[in-house]
Amino acid sequence: MARPNPDPAAARAVARSLARSGAGDAGDVLGAYLRSQATAFLRGLRLHQEGGAGAAGSGDAVRGLRGAAHRISGTLATFRAVAEPSWADGLRTELVWLSCALADEHACTARLVRLVDALHRLSGPAGLPAPRGTAGAPATGSARAAALLERRLTAARTQARTATLQALGSSRFHALADAVAVLASEVPLDPAAARGRAEAVLAPLAAAAETRLSAAVASLSPAAGGEAAPSPYDAGHDSRWHEVHRLLRLHRYAREALGGNVTRTAAAGEALDRQRDAVEAAAAASAAARTPRIAPATAYTLGVLHADQRHQAEAARGDFRRLWLREPAAAPR
Amino acid sequence: MARPNPDPAAARAVARSLARSGAGDAGDVLGAYLRSQATAFLRGLRLHQEGGAGAAGSGDAVRGLRGAAHRISGTLATFRAVAEPSWADGLRTELVWLSCALADEHACTARLVRLVDALHRLSGPAGLPAPRGTAGAPATGSARAAALLERRLTAARTQARTATLQALGSSRFHALADAVAVLASEVPLDPAAARGRAEAVLAPLAAAAETRLSAAVASLSPAAGGEAAPSPYDAGHDSRWHEVHRLLRLHRYAREALGGNVTRTAAAGEALDRQRDAVEAAAAASAAARTPRIAPATAYTLGVLHADQRHQAEAARGDFRRLWLREPAAAPR
Repeated sequence: MARPNPDPAAARAVARSLARSGAGDAGDVLGAYLRSQATAFLRGLRLHQEGGAGAAGSGDAVRGLRGAAHRISGTLATFRAVAEPSWADGLRTELVWLSCALADEHACTARLVRLVDALHRLSGPAGLPAPRGTAGAPATGSARAAALLERRLTAARTQARTATLQALGSSRFHALADAVAVLASEVPLDPAAARGRAEAVLAPLAAAAETRLSAAVASLSPAAGGEAAPSPYDAGHDSRWHEVHRLLRLHRYAREALGGNVTRTAAAGEALDRQRDAVEAAAAASAAARTPRIAPATAYTLGVLHADQRHQAEAARGDFRRLWLREPAAAPR
Repeated sequence: MARPNPDPAAARAVARSLARSGAGDAGDVLGAYLRSQATAFLRGLRLHQEGGAGAAGSGDAVRGLRGAAHRISGTLATFRAVAEPSWADGLRTELVWLSCALADEHACTARLVRLVDALHRLSGPAGLPAPRGTAGAPATGSARAAALLERRLTAARTQARTATLQALGSSRFHALADAVAVLASEVPLDPAAARGRAEAVLAPLAAAAETRLSAAVASLSPAAGGEAAPSPYDAGHDSRWHEVHRLLRLHRYAREALGGNVTRTAAAGEALDRQRDAVEAAAAASAAARTPRIAPATAYTLGVLHADQRHQAEAARGDFRRLWLREPAAAPR
């Protein structure tokens, strides 16, 4: 990845804040954050083992595990120059593997809830405008689409659940948990870099992460409603938003590690979570419409649902722009 | 219809403007406006007869006829107290009949253009997200939906064209044209009311029309994006917007008759035209999806199109709110 030069103003602001807090050595600051996240990881793991596979607390435990895994791997990416490189790269690979393995089950549940909620909302008091007369009662398309989505997403979730349990029972996971347990007490850092002042060593690396985020945000197409707004179905556009989402997470964890305020970053991240959920829900509606031999009324409802979720994604992207770029609300189009 | 008391401030503002312009008698002001609109009506009629049935100018001629018919009947409704009542009511009935008879052809053309444009926009560079694999190439749903809409709306337009030509050739229309020709030289008014000052007689009637509009606008549900926003598919909601549209037209013609500025009213009216066109295009997509034996991919595309047009309607309603109520842009949802 191209590394733009860090924004000097951003680096200076981070450095000032670190100096004010009397943060000390780069190694102290980074070590404290990584140790706290390793502890959170181990807490999530213990919760999961205690809660049993089917308990309601299992979702929280997995969420805790994933949050800590994200933070550790993100921190190792942004501050790679301060860590012991071969250790950092190896651990990061394993943490990314775990995050992916744990993501699907929750995503399937969230997607089903989102799509069924959208069907209810679109049905509203007057009923979804399904093509009446094609297949009996007006709500038939809506009910059939809901049943089809439930069948498909429940099957996917069951598969994801099995994959999660397999991952958490694997020797690969046990090796990773051991590595994180070591991290909770001792963080392998580059001795020379770790001895530097936090404001001199870490601030420029955090600023570089922020600069990468700004460049990705600048590459986004103009807001919906603008003259040159892209088709809402442009897949290249989706991947640029995905990259912004990834870089915003890295920026947020870097700020957290350096003790910065993350209120605005967290709110912007929630907007990006919503746009990703909507984009994926739209894709699930589209995929369900590819089921062979479905009734036209079902396909019609899935089309409505797809377009609705794409519009929800655009709305969440508008929320991000307002939060992050402080752009005024665009006329909705 | 319930007639709310005119807003005293609005009535005073209109009266001041009329007094400043030295407008004179109510009969003079109203008579001048009605005569000018009757002349516009006759010009449209002549254009239509000269242009022949199939010429491109025919659309302009019919538009001119409709605009004048709207203005005369609207003025007779708002200022009914100043006109000779049985004459005014009779002429109004005939003008409304003509407006309806002339409306459909243009509406069918506009609807087809709007839907085919929307299909192109939604297809975009990456292609419409039709359910691939159900029926060959990815664009199949889109192309089939376009063909189906074109077939249906072209048939409807041909029917509407026949109805327009029948209306314009009917003895009912010839009697109406004669009545408008009389109006172009002499306007039958109530002698007592017509002798009053324009600011005393006409201003309160115009203000009452504005008050009816304000009441209808106040009855609209909160903007989309608000907490209590209705389902976008609530038909009762559509009819409230339809009523606002009708009353805004009456308000605009009353301002025109009294020589007021209609820039903002015209812009708000255009937003309401757009929302109506989008609502009707959505209904046309939904109706097309009721065609028996269509492919699921076609139905899916029509569902996407329906939802897209409902969102376009919401966007145009947001434009109206910003123009008319000077509401800030709502976060698009």
